[in-house]
Amino acid sequence: MDEQFDLVVRGGDVVTAHERFAADVAVRGRRIAALGHGLRGRREIDASGCLVLPGAIDGHVHMRTERGYDMYDDTFETGSVAAAFGGVTTMIDQAQVEPGQSLADGLDARLAAAEGRSLIDYGFHVNLREASRERIAEIPELIARGFPRFKFFMFYDGYFLPDEYIFAAMQEVGRGGGLAIVHAENRPVILELARQNAEAGRHGAAANAAARPPVIEGEATHRALAMAAVAGTDVLIFHMTTQDGARELAAARARGQTAYGEVCPQYLLLTEEAWEDPVSGPALDFSPPLRGAEHREALWRALGDGVIDVVSTDHGPRRRVTDEEGRVTTPPGTSGIETRLALMYTEGVRAGRLSVNRWLDSCCTRPAAVFGLERKGRLLPGADADVVVFDPERELTLGPDVLHSAIDHSTYEGMTVRGWPRTTIAGGEVLVHDGEQLADVGRGALLRAVRDSA
Amino acid sequence: MDEQFDLVVRGGDVVTAHERFAADVAVRGRRIAALGHGLRGRREIDASGCLVLPGAIDGHVHMRTERGYDMYDDTFETGSVAAAFGGVTTMIDQAQVEPGQSLADGLDARLAAAEGRSLIDYGFHVNLREASRERIAEIPELIARGFPRFKFFMFYDGYFLPDEYIFAAMQEVGRGGGLAIVHAENRPVILELARQNAEAGRHGAAANAAARPPVIEGEATHRALAMAAVAGTDVLIFHMTTQDGARELAAARARGQTAYGEVCPQYLLLTEEAWEDPVSGPALDFSPPLRGAEHREALWRALGDGVIDVVSTDHGPRRRVTDEEGRVTTPPGTSGIETRLALMYTEGVRAGRLSVNRWLDSCCTRPAAVFGLERKGRLLPGADADVVVFDPERELTLGPDVLHSAIDHSTYEGMTVRGWPRTTIAGGEVLVHDGEQLADVGRGALLRAVRDSA
Amino acid sequence: MDEQFDLVVRGGDVVTAHERFAADVAVRGRRIAALGHGLRGRREIDASGCLVLPGAIDGHVHMRTERGYDMYDDTFETGSVAAAFGGVTTMIDQAQVEPGQSLADGLDARLAAAEGRSLIDYGFHVNLREASRERIAEIPELIARGFPRFKFFMFYDGYFLPDEYIFAAMQEVGRGGGLAIVHAENRPVILELARQNAEAGRHGAAANAAARPPVIEGEATHRALAMAAVAGTDVLIFHMTTQDGARELAAARARGQTAYGEVCPQYLLLTEEAWEDPVSGPALDFSPPLRGAEHREALWRALGDGVIDVVSTDHGPRRRVTDEEGRVTTPPGTSGIETRLALMYTEGVRAGRLSVNRWLDSCCTRPAAVFGLERKGRLLPGADADVVVFDPERELTLGPDVLHSAIDHSTYEGMTVRGWPRTTIAGGEVLVHDGEQLADVGRGALLRAVRDSA
Amino acid sequence: MDEQFDLVVRGGDVVTAHERFAADVAVRGRRIAALGHGLRGRREIDASGCLVLPGAIDGHVHMRTERGYDMYDDTFETGSVAAAFGGVTTMIDQAQVEPGQSLADGLDARLAAAEGRSLIDYGFHVNLREASRERIAEIPELIARGFPRFKFFMFYDGYFLPDEYIFAAMQEVGRGGGLAIVHAENRPVILELARQNAEAGRHGAAANAAARPPVIEGEATHRALAMAAVAGTDVLIFHMTTQDGARELAAARARGQTAYGEVCPQYLLLTEEAWEDPVSGPALDFSPPLRGAEHREALWRALGDGVIDVVSTDHGPRRRVTDEEGRVTTPPGTSGIETRLALMYTEGVRAGRLSVNRWLDSCCTRPAAVFGLERKGRLLPGADADVVVFDPERELTLGPDVLHSAIDHSTYEGMTVRGWPRTTIAGGEVLVHDGEQLADVGRGALLRAVRDSA
Repeated sequence: MDEQFDLVVRGGDVVTAHERFAADVAVRGRRIAALGHGLRGRREIDASGCLVLPGAIDGHVHMRTERGYDMYDDTFETGSVAAAFGGVTTMIDQAQVEPGQSLADGLDARLAAAEGRSLIDYGFHVNLREASRERIAEIPELIARGFPRFKFFMFYDGYFLPDEYIFAAMQEVGRGGGLAIVHAENRPVILELARQNAEAGRHGAAANAAARPPVIEGEATHRALAMAAVAGTDVLIFHMTTQDGARELAAARARGQTAYGEVCPQYLLLTEEAWEDPVSGPALDFSPPLRGAEHREALWRALGDGVIDVVSTDHGPRRRVTDEEGRVTTPPGTSGIETRLALMYTEGVRAGRLSVNRWLDSCCTRPAAVFGLERKGRLLPGADADVVVFDPERELTLGPDVLHSAIDHSTYEGMTVRGWPRTTIAGGEVLVHDGEQLADVGRGALLRAVRDSA
Repeated sequence: MDEQFDLVVRGGDVVTAHERFAADVAVRGRRIAALGHGLRGRREIDASGCLVLPGAIDGHVHMRTERGYDMYDDTFETGSVAAAFGGVTTMIDQAQVEPGQSLADGLDARLAAAEGRSLIDYGFHVNLREASRERIAEIPELIARGFPRFKFFMFYDGYFLPDEYIFAAMQEVGRGGGLAIVHAENRPVILELARQNAEAGRHGAAANAAARPPVIEGEATHRALAMAAVAGTDVLIFHMTTQDGARELAAARARGQTAYGEVCPQYLLLTEEAWEDPVSGPALDFSPPLRGAEHREALWRALGDGVIDVVSTDHGPRRRVTDEEGRVTTPPGTSGIETRLALMYTEGVRAGRLSVNRWLDSCCTRPAAVFGLERKGRLLPGADADVVVFDPERELTLGPDVLHSAIDHSTYEGMTVRGWPRTTIAGGEVLVHDGEQLADVGRGALLRAVRDSA
Repeated sequence: MDEQFDLVVRGGDVVTAHERFAADVAVRGRRIAALGHGLRGRREIDASGCLVLPGAIDGHVHMRTERGYDMYDDTFETGSVAAAFGGVTTMIDQAQVEPGQSLADGLDARLAAAEGRSLIDYGFHVNLREASRERIAEIPELIARGFPRFKFFMFYDGYFLPDEYIFAAMQEVGRGGGLAIVHAENRPVILELARQNAEAGRHGAAANAAARPPVIEGEATHRALAMAAVAGTDVLIFHMTTQDGARELAAARARGQTAYGEVCPQYLLLTEEAWEDPVSGPALDFSPPLRGAEHREALWRALGDGVIDVVSTDHGPRRRVTDEEGRVTTPPGTSGIETRLALMYTEGVRAGRLSVNRWLDSCCTRPAAVFGLERKGRLLPGADADVVVFDPERELTLGPDVLHSAIDHSTYEGMTVRGWPRTTIAGGEVLVHDGEQLADVGRGALLRAVRDSA
Repeated sequence: MDEQFDLVVRGGDVVTAHERFAADVAVRGRRIAALGHGLRGRREIDASGCLVLPGAIDGHVHMRTERGYDMYDDTFETGSVAAAFGGVTTMIDQAQVEPGQSLADGLDARLAAAEGRSLIDYGFHVNLREASRERIAEIPELIARGFPRFKFFMFYDGYFLPDEYIFAAMQEVGRGGGLAIVHAENRPVILELARQNAEAGRHGAAANAAARPPVIEGEATHRALAMAAVAGTDVLIFHMTTQDGARELAAARARGQTAYGEVCPQYLLLTEEAWEDPVSGPALDFSPPLRGAEHREALWRALGDGVIDVVSTDHGPRRRVTDEEGRVTTPPGTSGIETRLALMYTEGVRAGRLSVNRWLDSCCTRPAAVFGLERKGRLLPGADADVVVFDPERELTLGPDVLHSAIDHSTYEGMTVRGWPRTTIAGGEVLVHDGEQLADVGRGALLRAVRDSA
């Protein structure tokens, strides 16, 4: 029998969002050609004892930009390599367009910054930061160019938009069939509580969290969903951290709205006690903040039930710094792009909180649908040949020595995972195999998107 | 047997929030002295065949002020007389404190304007309009003076406060055990939709309503409730008009929050078709707007179930005007203080939508509890002797000829009610009997309040 | 001023289902004549510092009958005295009509057994035990005689009726405007599980409880409610013990059904550990059984929310017995008629689980409405002058020495209550005052009933 | 390139429970070998413009047996041919074991009756009709032989089991990991209402339906679910017809129970008016009965949402008969095995009530999971090569002339479907192509099953 295919991943268990079955996965060129039994290829990779997955998608990452104040320490080069080691073959960054700049200019600058530097395919959400009708009027042009996902901040000076602009922009996004993504926090209440904290001399991560009570994350979530409903757009709530938010998302969906939710591993796995470490604790002083156990449990349930659709990382790690007095500290930010699949397998699937299908779905398949990446996230004939061979028994204790981000620590340092990607294939090309990088940065392509409601 | 009491209302059926029973109601001085059988008084009023109620409370009225731009056409004199004819013995107006003025000064000016002019007892909500911490800091002083109810607008230039100020003020109200009252609308979305209406040349009541979709009334309701929950204050949502808002109120209450809702007869009884009358339609171009049938039905259900607590009127009627071209029109505003009890009896109790107890409760008893008027709203020994003898069979066709507001039309013109107050007693004094006014304006007293959660 | 009234209870706080207020309660003859301030009577009882209540109603008691096998040890004489000491002025027993006997004969025999023997007023539910259409056809006659409440067992040989007869009887009860009362347990599943227990040698209270899993109490409750809904009758579920049952009751009511629930103190207060005492434990081996903490908490919540309407006792205590081997044991049954008000005040009101109003309502007012006793349960002019002066500070440690049932122990032995009736008045006559019995058995009258939906 | 495969269905759109994508489906021997692009086979079938599905499963059919009183007019021969024409490649009949006979004997007799007579694969549910512990004790043996699905009737003399036996049998089924299937009706209430109908001279389908009010279908559903929950078995409710039942199923599932529901096309498509046709109406006088529009709509929603899992037919048609007076009538029963896929596509997918995925899922994939047919219902490598090429544009007006059941009419006579199977393949063999039967009865094999919770 001829070797009909270029590459065949043989003998593994293919996992989909709803099934698990033994099958070989065959590649021709850059695409999946077939799933079947007894398929033969010019090159074959043995996946015995392993799970075979579509390459994972991280829909929420921050790679370093050229801007002086943008401090994340992974670049497209280092971040995309870390991604590939972690089984991620697609990442979506943000084009955070500067006020005063057209959306097209802002996007183009970001495209140029990424061009030729990524090991894996990548896309961008467009972050509208300027409260102007002129910018909103540019949305259709961006959608036409294949960038239908627009991110709106309800918090952060320099980023947040007043609700009237978020709403008007959502209308434009909705008309184009795009996706509105919202960082949903209630700015007025937080600012007032933060002011009261400052007056009372309360500082640090715990004070920051206290200024962001879960009830108002529910509020901001409800508000974002309501504006999207009236505006007529699909909407995704980023980094949900509370049962209040999850409740509002579920309620909106039960009323028939097309609305999605994202959760990040840090909100599922880290506890507020971690703030107390003087070296690593400051890294976890971010917003929305870590929450208590009842919220973590509610988030796991919401993820398991599909109320929350996707797991992304908000990857944006920083190197440690030493202050004038010689104290080592870690600026806020989390590294997660390399560890997500393994952490979610270990703490989700092995711990009985997620089915293997829901794990796969939340990290690979559902993101492709939500973000409009039609050739990603599924092992189907015609899809991009992004394939991960995941060894469910391989153990690894996490730390900077075994990970590939350009930082000197890890958000999950010391945690041991059981389950780790053995082989990462993208576009039919083996990027990583058995801990060895086999392809060079620069091969990753820009992804444009077409969205239907997922 | 001695005539033990000053006044006895004999032979009627006393109605309470939960009971109905035959009893005489005896008054000594200004207070209820007893309920019983066979009570005798120096003066006796026959209530045979009638319902005997505590005097009704209208918790939401607007009497004319001295300010040039405040155009309501009922004064304390005319409005309080209309109230008494309608069985209302307590009304609560607003002290809409001008920006730049202290709350105390604003309140005092309003107290002075009302002093000696009302036939019935009256109180004031304090309306905070200035976004300043200085004003917020004055809240405890007002509460200490017996004015614990603060109203916040989320809409209307000159009235609305940014959320951070509403929230900070709610904290102060909560600390004092007061009540935050909210006009809950989503300003940014409404402004944007109104702008789009203006651009498209859409005007009038229907366009105004279209700029205020029910979903965002739900949003504003949810937001007001969430801010109140975090601020730790009891909260009342004024003039609820949508099932969306009612749903959010019920959900908050099911989560344990102390939250109340008000509905007004116009939202229960008037339909959007009424906008089309060229003379009377413009009077109904107010906000929040009239809604469709499914919302009216949801409001009736919510009122019947007690999800919505109280019925007030937002009474603020205007005389008709003739424009330069000789066209007669009616400025926005509704008259309702005189007709509420009768309308709600006819369309609520007779129509099978409300029990007679829930009718009484929503118009008399519950408002006393919500607003902190401890001696009002109940026919109990020691309570103020505010008593209404309500004839359930008396029919009246509504119009300016039979009503007592200082206007030349009626919001409910031409509607026939069956059930009308025969006698209105306040503080033991008969104000109105069989259509005749028997007491003079000026006798009504200012009410201070002490609130517990109702 | 004349002493207008025969008796006045002065200076206490009257508690109703929804209010609490200072008032004197005046009696003329056998009825309440007035509530008021400054009322004077020929006889006056000082209630300063006390709560003044309508006499409590125990809607579920079992007094001894003449039948040999009916072993309860309180007679109408002793039980009614115990009741009066506990603030109970009305009790409802059962006429458990023998198969083969007409309902009228069965009822009349029971009426004769009670005649002239009770200190307090009393009524009867009629318990239909014979699966025959002839008996069902007698229901209208009984309703016409003033006995509209029919009890149906879904369990117990000699008592249970097959569902087709329960349903047909419910139709008849519904046509007459009566009340179907159901002991709701799933007989087939219990019998099968009990058989398996017996085969496996599992005995005792824990085994009995294991044969009655909460899920099937939910099942039997749902079934009883569904049959009542189709039959068109109001329905009351006796002795609810599970959150499953409470959930089904709440759901049926939310669908618009007129359905009520009863809970008994033993299910709220006693824990499964009490089974282990060799002397007193066997008394608690009854059905439905005691449940775990999550059910007790759910029952308290349901009672506090009004999902469960009434608290009765299922009073039917037994004296201890000594077996052939000299071991003392206590046959199944609970005493509660004397202790209910005090226990529910202590563990409900004082413990923060019930408002004082809901306490009063569940023990006094709501039973009157549910059972159709129109002159009972409320301190209103014209109602029977059944009045309890309840001292909220009086402490008592429960035991046979201080209680009045004809038994030698107490179900709640050793528990200390704070709150106890000081004076019990019925029909204007003082039955008990300060621990002294002041009236004789025989004065209590038979109560007939007229039911509307409560 | 070699023709690697035996048969390739080329160029269609493969539909799965969650996806739709262009792919060829390749067969090797009796199994699916691959899905892919550019697959070649020794035989190829063009599926351009068509949907490619796994062969449909009808989990609820009644073929004629040898028993005299079993009147269905399709035999395994005729019924299986009709099935194949309708895209059905698996059907599950019942072994309705006679009382007095062992389950094994009853099953074996039925296996013998079917042996060698079916065109398609077939299985059996075992219907336990004898209330005996001996029979229940035989359940494990049947499960071990591959028959884990047991059907229980709660109605029908000769079929129904008392609840204690259903419950005990469910325990045995649960221990073996099997599936309890329930015909859920409340026998006592129905018998009583039917008796009252008979007394009142009410007959016919409408009277039959009136004796089975929806509330008690909800009751029987709740009861079946509760017994299954306590017994610890997975459970499937057959032919759900009411929103009451759907509500109970959804509630049980929300509480964590593994419970499934079935609906049949007749309950989704036929209206009560159809009873009035004197010839065809009597065919529709079955139980549970047709319901009103609000129930049909609720069933569609429940099916669309996945609350109801599967669509089966309860296929059991009868030929028309002429009575002594020459009147033609149609005995109760429905034909549906051939028309289900097309009807559900037309009235479900085309009418916007079902997604194409949910259509496929409810007819093909979900039944395989629920019934434990691991190699059926999915187009995956290794699955049985049961493939249907479904032409979504082919129109057909239904009637006995175009259908293949051994009857002289059709339940859906005169309805026009758009969408019809063009080719039906089973085990790699083409059974039907373009309206022509290409294989002979006898080839269908008996299916044994292994169940996990689906």
